Amino acid sequence: MEQELIDKLVTKNDKKIIFLILDGLGGLPQTPGGQTELEAARTPNLDRLAASGTCGLLDPVGYGITPGSGPAHFALFGYDPVAYNVGRGLLSAAGLDFPITEGDLYMRANFATVDAQGLITDRRAGRLATEKNEAICRQLQENIRLSSGTQAFFRTEKEHRALVALRGGDFCEEIAETDPQKTGLAPLLPVELAPQAKKTAAIMRELTEKINNALKNEEAANTILLRGYAAYRRFPSMTERFGLQPLAIASYPMYKGIAKLLGMELASATQTVEEEIQALQNNYRDHDFFFVHIKYTDSRGEDGQFAEKVQVIEKIDALIPDICALNPDVLVVTGDHSTPAVLSGHSWHPVPVLLSAATSLPDTAASFGERACITGGLGRMPMKYLLGVALAHAGKLQKFGA
Amino acid sequence: MEQELIDKLVTKNDKKIIFLILDGLGGLPQTPGGQTELEAARTPNLDRLAASGTCGLLDPVGYGITPGSGPAHFALFGYDPVAYNVGRGLLSAAGLDFPITEGDLYMRANFATVDAQGLITDRRAGRLATEKNEAICRQLQENIRLSSGTQAFFRTEKEHRALVALRGGDFCEEIAETDPQKTGLAPLLPVELAPQAKKTAAIMRELTEKINNALKNEEAANTILLRGYAAYRRFPSMTERFGLQPLAIASYPMYKGIAKLLGMELASATQTVEEEIQALQNNYRDHDFFFVHIKYTDSRGEDGQFAEKVQVIEKIDALIPDICALNPDVLVVTGDHSTPAVLSGHSWHPVPVLLSAATSLPDTAASFGERACITGGLGRMPMKYLLGVALAHAGKLQKFGA
Repeated sequence: MEQELIDKLVTKNDKKIIFLILDGLGGLPQTPGGQTELEAARTPNLDRLAASGTCGLLDPVGYGITPGSGPAHFALFGYDPVAYNVGRGLLSAAGLDFPITEGDLYMRANFATVDAQGLITDRRAGRLATEKNEAICRQLQENIRLSSGTQAFFRTEKEHRALVALRGGDFCEEIAETDPQKTGLAPLLPVELAPQAKKTAAIMRELTEKINNALKNEEAANTILLRGYAAYRRFPSMTERFGLQPLAIASYPMYKGIAKLLGMELASATQTVEEEIQALQNNYRDHDFFFVHIKYTDSRGEDGQFAEKVQVIEKIDALIPDICALNPDVLVVTGDHSTPAVLSGHSWHPVPVLLSAATSLPDTAASFGERACITGGLGRMPMKYLLGVALAHAGKLQKFGA
Repeated sequence: MEQELIDKLVTKNDKKIIFLILDGLGGLPQTPGGQTELEAARTPNLDRLAASGTCGLLDPVGYGITPGSGPAHFALFGYDPVAYNVGRGLLSAAGLDFPITEGDLYMRANFATVDAQGLITDRRAGRLATEKNEAICRQLQENIRLSSGTQAFFRTEKEHRALVALRGGDFCEEIAETDPQKTGLAPLLPVELAPQAKKTAAIMRELTEKINNALKNEEAANTILLRGYAAYRRFPSMTERFGLQPLAIASYPMYKGIAKLLGMELASATQTVEEEIQALQNNYRDHDFFFVHIKYTDSRGEDGQFAEKVQVIEKIDALIPDICALNPDVLVVTGDHSTPAVLSGHSWHPVPVLLSAATSLPDTAASFGERACITGGLGRMPMKYLLGVALAHAGKLQKFGA
């Protein structure tokens, strides 16, 4: 509810806010008594910002909850990650630049293989070649015709992964996923999980039957597994909610997709971190909120590469002066969640954050790290409130009440 | 909801709680690396209380939200500041000692001037002399007669500000404010903002037309601008909710008004801080909750006077021994919100608090200041929960559950 309150207090000005998001930033020591990735990294520039700014620890979704990238980013942008929890299908559609349309039903699909008895032999069809995936999607797009005017769309993601979209129907996403998550079992039926999903379930049964029929002689992948259903209803954009003109600078499709769902403009293609900073500089005049997404901290964490994650952090630190040279009114550096290399995956640990602004009260956190941030002035803060604090420091919120 | 829980756990005893509220206490350094007003002030008595008590940082309404005095005080007294957000008109009525009656509609009014075309030339009528305001209010009170049995009341506040009250009607406050907030524009019409406000809007149109007609030859102020609508529904008092017999000691009308809305008794007229402490001593036997309001910290902050705000804090510190001599069971010292002198206004920064009681666990905060309070045992706490903690330390809350 505080979020709706903030929406009502928004006032526009020219002040600029940068959110530098190091994906999976939070970490853990590699050995007992050791330092985390962020603590181990030599980060003179981030340390300086931490010393002059206000620090804290963010909980992306809630105490003890390990977030996926979707909820973690929604929270970063001031959207309640539980209320706005969206199926993976929608994030895939957005990431693929599919023309997202209100009322569509989006699904994440895996091409897979079944034996003569119809039991799954490989849930990923041997990590199918992407070109083969594209050929299959073209074939399905040409041949699958559903009754009652529902249109089906098939789009390749990568390897065995694809997007399936349905359009033209009053869809309900309360449908059972068809991936049994194990080999040796048959794909599950897309039955309704709520009475109001009965019509959607019938369409889904027709869809899976027709797909299986079309693929029955396809050796590489003779079935499909569906999950991550998302019946899309339009979200209020960051412009509508906060009066911002936001720009997203990201290299990975999913983060671009999330940004687009929230009404951000996308900077043109960037791959390296240096290109991202270049894009920030080039577009700085035309926007007032900048989401700069660094993927590689998370990637190295996911791969369990402690030293390499440290290196990515140090590389970003070296680019901080270029960002500061723009003189943003508010600079926030944080992650969307923790990805400790020792866990090789997302975790529930709170995420260090620093906020630097002329109006921030420096606290005792004199360096940027998990343990320093515990003593920070932002305290232990739910991530969804961070944007409001940034808006306040940018003078973009009016007083509440008389 | 936690608050309703506290209401159910209340038990009465004779223990006494003092809330010493230094309005706008929280601050910011005047120069980078400097101290805040509270940190810069020499406060040996407050430091001693901070060292032996428990400290923390309070968020009056929410992260990033700058509160007005109304919501900030409601939160201090354990009332959710969003649920109990009241229009400025009601605070004005309470502050003026107007006989507040359930069902009334209260409005804040500015007398203003319009030119021959009806466009506003001065939204404050040249900060009208208060005597002139009184003469106009008398004239309106004698001449304005509304149809359908609605009574209108006009009361002078100060300079160009007045209270307008309507009585006898089923009022709805969802009406457009008539102040366009700019000169060169005509006053806005008090149109309904919700269907159920249609009847109220019709009465408001009649009211503004008749006022404008009555003032049309009044050179000093020939129109009125209305805002801060509040249709009054009675609040549960602090006696009903918490079993307290509260006394308010305040010198400014608005704070007296807020106290009265929550069922506090008012100490007789006090102007200086010394008179307020005297009133505390004189009434100490007859109450068990004391709201002592110090306005001048906020006033100096609003005026941007850092050194003068420091002086007010030091002056209060010198009076702390007199308060401690009363041996209160719980002494809380905090502000309602922050008013950093460098910002010359209310801000969203959390407010330092100290709570001193025999049962408080001393933390590492060894002096009373924003940065010391970050490390305090109360942590970063929503202000609306403070009263519950004070009740607990006073033994006024029973155990929850078996």
